[in-house]
Amino acid sequence: MRNTKINIERRKNKKTKPAPENLGFGTVYSDHMFIMDYSTEKGWHSPKITPYGPISLDPGTSVFQYAQSVFDGFKAYRTEDNRILIFRPEENLKRLNASCDRLCIPSIDEEFVLKAVKQLVDIDQDWIPTLKGTSLYIRPYIIATDVSLSVTPSKTYKFIMILSPVGAYYSEGFNPVGINVEETYARAVKGGTGAAKTAGNYSPGYKAQEKASEKGNAQVLWLDAIEKKYIEEVGSMNVFFKINNEVITPPLNGTILSGITRMSVIELLKYWNVPVYERDITIEEVHQAYVNGGLEEVFGAGTAAVIAPIGQLNWGDQEMVINNKQTGGLSQKLFDTLIGIQTGKLEDPFNWTVEVEKELTL
Amino acid sequence: MRNTKINIERRKNKKTKPAPENLGFGTVYSDHMFIMDYSTEKGWHSPKITPYGPISLDPGTSVFQYAQSVFDGFKAYRTEDNRILIFRPEENLKRLNASCDRLCIPSIDEEFVLKAVKQLVDIDQDWIPTLKGTSLYIRPYIIATDVSLSVTPSKTYKFIMILSPVGAYYSEGFNPVGINVEETYARAVKGGTGAAKTAGNYSPGYKAQEKASEKGNAQVLWLDAIEKKYIEEVGSMNVFFKINNEVITPPLNGTILSGITRMSVIELLKYWNVPVYERDITIEEVHQAYVNGGLEEVFGAGTAAVIAPIGQLNWGDQEMVINNKQTGGLSQKLFDTLIGIQTGKLEDPFNWTVEVEKELTL
Ligand SMILES: Cc1ncc(COP(=O)(O)O)c(C=O)c1O
Ligand SMILES: Cc1ncc(COP(=O)(O)O)c(C=O)c1O
Repeated sequence: MRNTKINIERRKNKKTKPAPENLGFGTVYSDHMFIMDYSTEKGWHSPKITPYGPISLDPGTSVFQYAQSVFDGFKAYRTEDNRILIFRPEENLKRLNASCDRLCIPSIDEEFVLKAVKQLVDIDQDWIPTLKGTSLYIRPYIIATDVSLSVTPSKTYKFIMILSPVGAYYSEGFNPVGINVEETYARAVKGGTGAAKTAGNYSPGYKAQEKASEKGNAQVLWLDAIEKKYIEEVGSMNVFFKINNEVITPPLNGTILSGITRMSVIELLKYWNVPVYERDITIEEVHQAYVNGGLEEVFGAGTAAVIAPIGQLNWGDQEMVINNKQTGGLSQKLFDTLIGIQTGKLEDPFNWTVEVEKELTL
Repeated sequence: MRNTKINIERRKNKKTKPAPENLGFGTVYSDHMFIMDYSTEKGWHSPKITPYGPISLDPGTSVFQYAQSVFDGFKAYRTEDNRILIFRPEENLKRLNASCDRLCIPSIDEEFVLKAVKQLVDIDQDWIPTLKGTSLYIRPYIIATDVSLSVTPSKTYKFIMILSPVGAYYSEGFNPVGINVEETYARAVKGGTGAAKTAGNYSPGYKAQEKASEKGNAQVLWLDAIEKKYIEEVGSMNVFFKINNEVITPPLNGTILSGITRMSVIELLKYWNVPVYERDITIEEVHQAYVNGGLEEVFGAGTAAVIAPIGQLNWGDQEMVINNKQTGGLSQKLFDTLIGIQTGKLEDPFNWTVEVEKELTL
């Protein structure tokens, strides 16, 4: 469908935009959305950009019953010289297709959808906030739309893409947070869906998050489901440990999401000649490093926060305070560099950003 | 909310009913549905029975993103003397609340919802098919309705209940099926959601089901995610093995759904003084029993099929043909007894069925 034309219906009256200081995460949406449908006969078809508005579904629609639903998330930024940059969207669309495959959802044409991303962002470009730390979050998702209670893959789907201006994750500088190491609940297991971005991977984590919050922690550190020993992720982010001047992150062994931020952090570290290893790391090893004074920095990496410094790890009775609850130098440098590249302030030696050109929708 | 009145808006023109011979599973819905809303301030409120019809949701609605959604399923039958019986609905509503708890969804008032079930079934009682083996399937489900991309429990929900006349699972007598023992994909793991009826538990199984079908099997036999050794469930059913005159089913250890049919089978077997054990059973033990000639019957148990005899288990290279692919005597007796009780043909010594009284909605 590479050359299919996207039908565009523009909104008559634009919505009022929220004050850029008060943006949260994903509560306000732009004026338009992109939508297309899938059927066995037609494949993905009828792509259109329409005014943002409700969708009507039969109560027997299969997504409500069996969560055959995948999504992804990435960001567009406005540069100081007024260009629009999207951070590594090809990687997100590739991952979206990997998620589709895991849930038996028909794949999308990545090139075509990238075109749709650009057109939608272009049309709603005055929704890209410019305040420091803000951005326009792009959320494509796919839902199964067969009206059927049968526990089988749907034969019809909807692809929907919405845009949400999001606030600065750290409005007043970094604030390294406390993390609860979760030893009861599991996020993912080999043979499950942990490596995919399925809707069903997220709400099962609420219970552990609730437990972490009750103990005053910001997030959960997930261990492997089998031995509760190997570190997997933190909240909805990948996790990195700086121990004795080396950086370690768990490998992509089937239970961990392949984060685009993770990938970018690894590439940056290699570029800087900082030793970085994708390898199994146990919570016991982290604790030993802490005891020996070698645990220098811990941080999460993901699209929403970019880099999230961790100030304390709580593992049963053990409280490991990291870098005196201050943001480490490497965490800060990674954050500054990534944000710098994303917003066009720094050079982009890897060609990570994709520019939305002006003439696109003319 | 025990005494809240359910607002009833009746449909003007009734829909045409499908021919009872052509009913599938969950493709046709009755004239009305039950719906109620939840908010933090009001709790569950505004319960109503309305004409069956589409619901309108903002594309940013959280259920699409993170599958905070649970459901249950049970059946109503029309007896020969024209009464309406529902099979163990209290158990399903109790289980629905357990599912809610696992996904941080506010619990429902089980007594009130049972009243709603009866009223809805009563209003749409001419949708209960009477052909042998048919029934009216009742599907309550709850979805998170906050318009937010934040990965946190919703503060608002919709409870929806729909009715679907379903066909005979076995229109021409039992047909023992082949099953693929799955050794790569996992359904559930300790600390996950396997013991709950969450939407997100189902679509992850499609991939394994696809694999099973390609090899000519009807369903998947799930092993434990950790050692791929212990038997858990078959398709979306619990599983039973009759070995040397004893019946064995895996225990409810946190990864298996507590099936109401499973529970009923166990109670019936105890009532009949047939030895029945809820204990760990490995695929290796089943294979050994097969080799020694002790593997007498294998069957699935669940609301849709009631009892589903298994004719062959395919485990890697091993093909275990069970009872010459014929339905075993115990499987048949369990099926006949359960169906007999459900349809009011046999006495109900356990008080399993709940009758919908005529005067309910007058
Ligand atoms: C489970 C999980 N892990 C990691 C990530 C980080 O991935 P990315 O850097 O692509 O945002 C995310 C968020 O996208 C996630 O949901
Ligand atoms: C995963 C799973 N196991 C078992 C069952 C059987 O439970 P029940 O007998 O209550 O229908 C079901 C279906 O409800 C199920 O979805």
